[in-house]
Amino acid sequence: MSLDGVKALTFDVFGTVVDWRSSIAREAEVLLAPKGHDLDWPAFADAWRARYQPAMEQVRSGARPFTKLDVLHRENLEGVLKTFDVAGLSEAELDHLNRAWHRLTPWPDAVEGLTRLKAKYVLATQSNGNVALMVNMAKNAGLPWDVILGAEVCQAYKPMPEAYRRAADLLGLRPEECMMTAAHNDDLKAAAASGFRTAFVARPGEKGPNQTIDLEAAPGMDIAATSFIDLADKLGCP
Amino acid sequence: MSLDGVKALTFDVFGTVVDWRSSIAREAEVLLAPKGHDLDWPAFADAWRARYQPAMEQVRSGARPFTKLDVLHRENLEGVLKTFDVAGLSEAELDHLNRAWHRLTPWPDAVEGLTRLKAKYVLATQSNGNVALMVNMAKNAGLPWDVILGAEVCQAYKPMPEAYRRAADLLGLRPEECMMTAAHNDDLKAAAASGFRTAFVARPGEKGPNQTIDLEAAPGMDIAATSFIDLADKLGCP
Repeated sequence: MSLDGVKALTFDVFGTVVDWRSSIAREAEVLLAPKGHDLDWPAFADAWRARYQPAMEQVRSGARPFTKLDVLHRENLEGVLKTFDVAGLSEAELDHLNRAWHRLTPWPDAVEGLTRLKAKYVLATQSNGNVALMVNMAKNAGLPWDVILGAEVCQAYKPMPEAYRRAADLLGLRPEECMMTAAHNDDLKAAAASGFRTAFVARPGEKGPNQTIDLEAAPGMDIAATSFIDLADKLGCP
Repeated sequence: MSLDGVKALTFDVFGTVVDWRSSIAREAEVLLAPKGHDLDWPAFADAWRARYQPAMEQVRSGARPFTKLDVLHRENLEGVLKTFDVAGLSEAELDHLNRAWHRLTPWPDAVEGLTRLKAKYVLATQSNGNVALMVNMAKNAGLPWDVILGAEVCQAYKPMPEAYRRAADLLGLRPEECMMTAAHNDDLKAAAASGFRTAFVARPGEKGPNQTIDLEAAPGMDIAATSFIDLADKLGCP
């Protein structure tokens, strides 16, 4: 399948571009360890993240109007703190910890790979993160996006078809001129169902040492890459 | 008034960042002169631009659902070609000329000034141009935006209050943490009415040699600058 017509790459961000698990574990430890908490920090990150899909599902199902991810993250944080028996944080501390998602650390190949890809393609975020989260993360980490799209702009959480279709419409492109780029096969399959091209980028450590899914590309992906450097190579971006 | 709390600059683009008049005049001449047309090219640009506000007013008034600027520009182009007795352009030629708005040339100080401002502030477009137009213009001209906001994302054309308020909300900022930057006093007054700080950047040649409005800042603007370089100086961006 020729990829000559691809004009924009749309990116999943959490897990694909940035390493949410070690970033969240580290930020939680920095805030909570001096207060005497001795948690399993990666398990804390996993527990917070485990509430992510169920919270978005409330919006996808229509049970709740569109609500930006900063708000869902905050509700989920308050829940997970209870399950870890952490109490007494100030409003400023809660807000700071919630905004750890705005400060996630990129995978080591991300900035170099994106910079090479940017010379040939429009680079758009297509994340479930809200606009402010994506903008602050990009400023903090040096991610060279051309445009911040995603759930808040499209008013739909992936993998709803509207999330992909509205992104292509905003870019003024046909779906087949957009390539979804993600470390998650379900995201890519949903994008493909809306006509997008697909690039799988393997992040086998995203979910920790016991990760069992998304270790490799599912059949039918247009590209399977091991990093953004590899993706730039495969797309002919010097 | 202290400007220490300002975190994002939101930019008008047509006229403030890019020189629409000479760009459109040049593109029209390049396409139409070889076909035997000998028009007053700046007058052609002015006539096309003169249909801009009335077209958006149809949307602002509610007479028409939100329609992106590429579509309004195309309708206006077909009208203005008739008044200049230009006929027989192919669909590809019409589309190419309409997309001249995606290829507008920046004022000479724009890229350098924005690059300096970007080190300290979030830079957001807050234009009536649609997302694809802004993205393509930025790629073509090297404009270093952090985020593309504006009419299509906010679903409201300036100077409607929603255009400014939704931009601040998307940035996760209070209105007073945003500074509207424009060469047009009416845009700045509307932003100020929604709580934004204001920076006037003079573009006395935007509307041609006979420009009579917006030659200087109206009273009450937070900053009056002569260029983006001057604005960077005034905001302490080295």
